[in-house]
Amino acid sequence: MPVLIVGSLGLDDIKTPAEEHHDVLGGSASYAAVSASFFTPPQLVAVVGDDFPKAHVDFFRTRKIDLAGLQHVEGKTFRWSGEYLTDMNRRETRSVALNVFEHFHPRLPDDYRKTPYVLLGNIHPSLQLLVLDQMEKPSFVAADTFDLWIQTAHEDLMKLLPRVDLLVINDEEARLLSGESNLIRAARAIMARGPRFLCVKKGEHGALLFGDDSAGEFFSCPSFPVADLHDPTGAGDCFAGGLVGHLARAAESDITFADLRQAVVYGSAMASFCVEAFSLDRLRKLRPAEIEARYAEFQRISQF
Amino acid sequence: MPVLIVGSLGLDDIKTPAEEHHDVLGGSASYAAVSASFFTPPQLVAVVGDDFPKAHVDFFRTRKIDLAGLQHVEGKTFRWSGEYLTDMNRRETRSVALNVFEHFHPRLPDDYRKTPYVLLGNIHPSLQLLVLDQMEKPSFVAADTFDLWIQTAHEDLMKLLPRVDLLVINDEEARLLSGESNLIRAARAIMARGPRFLCVKKGEHGALLFGDDSAGEFFSCPSFPVADLHDPTGAGDCFAGGLVGHLARAAESDITFADLRQAVVYGSAMASFCVEAFSLDRLRKLRPAEIEARYAEFQRISQF
Repeated sequence: MPVLIVGSLGLDDIKTPAEEHHDVLGGSASYAAVSASFFTPPQLVAVVGDDFPKAHVDFFRTRKIDLAGLQHVEGKTFRWSGEYLTDMNRRETRSVALNVFEHFHPRLPDDYRKTPYVLLGNIHPSLQLLVLDQMEKPSFVAADTFDLWIQTAHEDLMKLLPRVDLLVINDEEARLLSGESNLIRAARAIMARGPRFLCVKKGEHGALLFGDDSAGEFFSCPSFPVADLHDPTGAGDCFAGGLVGHLARAAESDITFADLRQAVVYGSAMASFCVEAFSLDRLRKLRPAEIEARYAEFQRISQF
Repeated sequence: MPVLIVGSLGLDDIKTPAEEHHDVLGGSASYAAVSASFFTPPQLVAVVGDDFPKAHVDFFRTRKIDLAGLQHVEGKTFRWSGEYLTDMNRRETRSVALNVFEHFHPRLPDDYRKTPYVLLGNIHPSLQLLVLDQMEKPSFVAADTFDLWIQTAHEDLMKLLPRVDLLVINDEEARLLSGESNLIRAARAIMARGPRFLCVKKGEHGALLFGDDSAGEFFSCPSFPVADLHDPTGAGDCFAGGLVGHLARAAESDITFADLRQAVVYGSAMASFCVEAFSLDRLRKLRPAEIEARYAEFQRISQF
């Protein structure tokens, strides 16, 4: 089954303690769509300016990403510049230039309206709602968000929550959104606002998946031990893309907690590949057999 | 098989955002020995002053803890006062009075010298070495330490490391001890100094177990989801006590990585009970069946 992915496409400048790269392919939708493409054909809804390199569009095509929903408009592509500090867990944004992304208005091609799986990448919640408004009746909707929207677009975010099946956020965002410092309580508070499932990403500490509390639906996924972390950019988007991509590939009529456990592991596997090189470089040469091997590694490191 | 446990016994004043308790039973050896006692008979090597309540000694007796190595000396018992801040992950020490602990010189009763399992609780590395010097040939030695000794007793600690099978420390201590911010690299650097196994405790994020890297010995243990955290004091000691207690109970002639995986889960289970009430109160009423049930819960929350 196809998965519709909306989000940003951008050109990034990234600095880590060891390396610095300019004008690399970035944006939440780039990472999510390429990650999902290893599982199922993604449909990309995004916008780029006239400076967006053709090579990146060609790369998306080689990944069999449907680009009917990609808008090319006059002006410059979204740009982000960031730096990772010594422990690679702390990131500082150096600059953001929204450019053509400032007036992005997602428009779905007609044949996207029936797409059963949807990943609403991290864009303004009003735009995420606008995408859902154009859809008929998706069977599974996952959404990402971040601290800025929690603080500045709270009302729209609250409207979005009851319309998503799975919210994917990180631990700090879960605390911010709920006002609870304990993650278990934070999760309960967030799920009371609508989503059936909640996935809390914790970076090097793995991810937690919450479902029906009364049925004991809880899963703790380890993170893969990466000794040589090159660039954490996009790891969360690769996680979400792999997660939803796997669900769409498995395409159960009703998604169960057991399906989601496996999807979280596939998402974690994709994130672990992502950080092994700058930008999307590791995913450019990734083979499906490597994904299955890493999935097996997750089993090995968590069994007792 | 019995397990010899050396560490501090103390009386604590503990404040959390919700509660405050004074003069409660504390100290690394209290938590570790009571936790281990659910698995195997512990032998306690520690010191108390003449103000140490008889009720606590009686409690140790009900837990079948061998007290032949417990020194009663003139003066006041070790005291610690601490406060947990809003997120319960940050602790501030308000005051420490070493009292009789200042001149503690661990002396092993003769029949402790052949004890096969040893847990060196968090005391000065020179005292931990002194315990090992009095032993014949223990089959498994685990040791705990903390930031103060890493900073002020580095030389003694370096002498200790080749003599322990398992070092148990938290993530910040692992970074401090190794000078590496990445935990996987930190673990490799520490194990190069001697211990065959390393367990890194990460509090609410679970624990990592490292063994022979070339054999892919790595285990990521989740933490149990505790929504009502009452008092984190002693969780790390209960972890170590449960871990070594389980190993001593299973009493394999040669401890394998598979044994240690299970031991880490038992340790995590004991830590998760510990934080459910102040001081050792939860362990006072804990039943063995509850431990096995929680062990099964760990399997449920980590399987996929």
